[in-house]
Amino acid sequence: MDKKLFAHQTKVSVRNYEIDWQGIVHNAIYLHYFEIGRIEYLNRIGAKVDVNAINTNAKVVLARNELDYLTPARFGDTLNVYSRISSIRNSSFIFEGFLERDSTKEVIAENVAVHVWLDPQSNAPMPVPDGFRKLVQRFEGEHCQIQWPTIIV
Amino acid sequence: MDKKLFAHQTKVSVRNYEIDWQGIVHNAIYLHYFEIGRIEYLNRIGAKVDVNAINTNAKVVLARNELDYLTPARFGDTLNVYSRISSIRNSSFIFEGFLERDSTKEVIAENVAVHVWLDPQSNAPMPVPDGFRKLVQRFEGEHCQIQWPTIIV
Amino acid sequence: MDKKLFAHQTKVSVRNYEIDWQGIVHNAIYLHYFEIGRIEYLNRIGAKVDVNAINTNAKVVLARNELDYLTPARFGDTLNVYSRISSIRNSSFIFEGFLERDSTKEVIAENVAVHVWLDPQSNAPMPVPDGFRKLVQRFEGEHCQIQWPTIIV
Amino acid sequence: MDKKLFAHQTKVSVRNYEIDWQGIVHNAIYLHYFEIGRIEYLNRIGAKVDVNAINTNAKVVLARNELDYLTPARFGDTLNVYSRISSIRNSSFIFEGFLERDSTKEVIAENVAVHVWLDPQSNAPMPVPDGFRKLVQRFEGEHCQIQWPTIIV
Repeated sequence: MDKKLFAHQTKVSVRNYEIDWQGIVHNAIYLHYFEIGRIEYLNRIGAKVDVNAINTNAKVVLARNELDYLTPARFGDTLNVYSRISSIRNSSFIFEGFLERDSTKEVIAENVAVHVWLDPQSNAPMPVPDGFRKLVQRFEGEHCQIQWPTIIV
Repeated sequence: MDKKLFAHQTKVSVRNYEIDWQGIVHNAIYLHYFEIGRIEYLNRIGAKVDVNAINTNAKVVLARNELDYLTPARFGDTLNVYSRISSIRNSSFIFEGFLERDSTKEVIAENVAVHVWLDPQSNAPMPVPDGFRKLVQRFEGEHCQIQWPTIIV
Repeated sequence: MDKKLFAHQTKVSVRNYEIDWQGIVHNAIYLHYFEIGRIEYLNRIGAKVDVNAINTNAKVVLARNELDYLTPARFGDTLNVYSRISSIRNSSFIFEGFLERDSTKEVIAENVAVHVWLDPQSNAPMPVPDGFRKLVQRFEGEHCQIQWPTIIV
Repeated sequence: MDKKLFAHQTKVSVRNYEIDWQGIVHNAIYLHYFEIGRIEYLNRIGAKVDVNAINTNAKVVLARNELDYLTPARFGDTLNVYSRISSIRNSSFIFEGFLERDSTKEVIAENVAVHVWLDPQSNAPMPVPDGFRKLVQRFEGEHCQIQWPTIIV
């Protein structure tokens, strides 16, 4: 992933109980780190995150996660978590992220996470609201490919 | 995924602390379930799993995880975990898996996990040992695509 | 703890990701096992457990946990989780539990967990409802010390 | 616990996946926070913490944990983790700790954790080494009650 495209970064410290029996961070824990990055990203761009939903009157679900493991993180590591929304389609949007060991700048893992916006009542996919598209566009500018709904006149 | 291709199945019960603030199983927990399936699969085909390695004198690492979330699992669910090795290439092999809610037979999530065999000393990829290929072939038969090393005379 | 006093037992299997860097079950995981025991106990005596409360119109919180670690559990162990409510006072009740390695009958850990019943509106302690006292008495008989509310005429 | 007795403090942020279905930090997670505090404490006083032991040639096990839950921590909270070794006896020592919500200074939970020093070969309790007693004494001064081994002439 191209670091220059990422305008948001946060840090996590590897905690001792995240280390597995192989002496490295367990493979599922990386999903936690990427999620921490996404939540901070959403807060930063102004999309309110509360306990039950990513946005008021919204229900956003994770539809797909892709994780590439490049080199393991270890206890004592501080990781830089880079996050960005790389595209918004009709009812879905894509978060990309990567983890970098702060001390060596090695890339630890990469993540592509596909989210789908659901109607809270019917649970059917609904168009990503314009308000959310605008928050992302304001933050990402040219770096996020946004497919705006076509209005047929 | 085609259920008929899966010769191995185990069960997990969703535990209460695996439920997140949205009332459903947290997205990272599914990786735990698939891993439980893979470990039992390896035991069943006779590949010894111990604390530090999947096989004696072996070091196998997870290089990539793909997860598709179809419908959420909830507290009280019993899940059937289906696992198979779908292909073995030179130094890597692929585990496929899916989770099925036992009560309704709905598919909860699907996983593709790419593993790479490393030389324990150099940490460089090495060919998947013939012994492991044979264990998988004996268990999977035609269902696993195995690329045997070419011997050039 | 005296095994003969425990009328409820369930089983858990140690999962691989519950093992820490010392090769044994991490010290916090035992709290998960005891909680699994308590939830099954409450279901068995007929106290409805749902996602948001132990009982309808009830709010029960954990006020204190005591854990004694006797010998570590390891990957592959099946543990018998024994649970009982040993006493009910005015607004609190006490769960006792212990974990036993199924293969050797060694005691792994013991737990005393003090719970307090709160008024869902005010969050102040309230008397443990009579309905709950009766469910416990029916199940535990003489083994649970129940302090019934004094009715002053 | 008396805050004035604690010379060591660190911070943890509550992570979203540590919140349970009741909207508060799960009761087992507090053990993680206290452990983070202890590991940083040991590093600070100069007791080397590595992957397999608290000290070289040492094996230290947790024998007992007492946890008092005063008020729940929530997502978004930053917690101050206070840790101290309050006493050292012949083969055991006691860590005390408490968690304070940074924004309000409320006490969230208190912990007493009894550790026992084992001989790495025999696994039998052995006297806490003098080197460790000295590191603690230098850091804690009068605040830690240290029972030095009696030398009978």
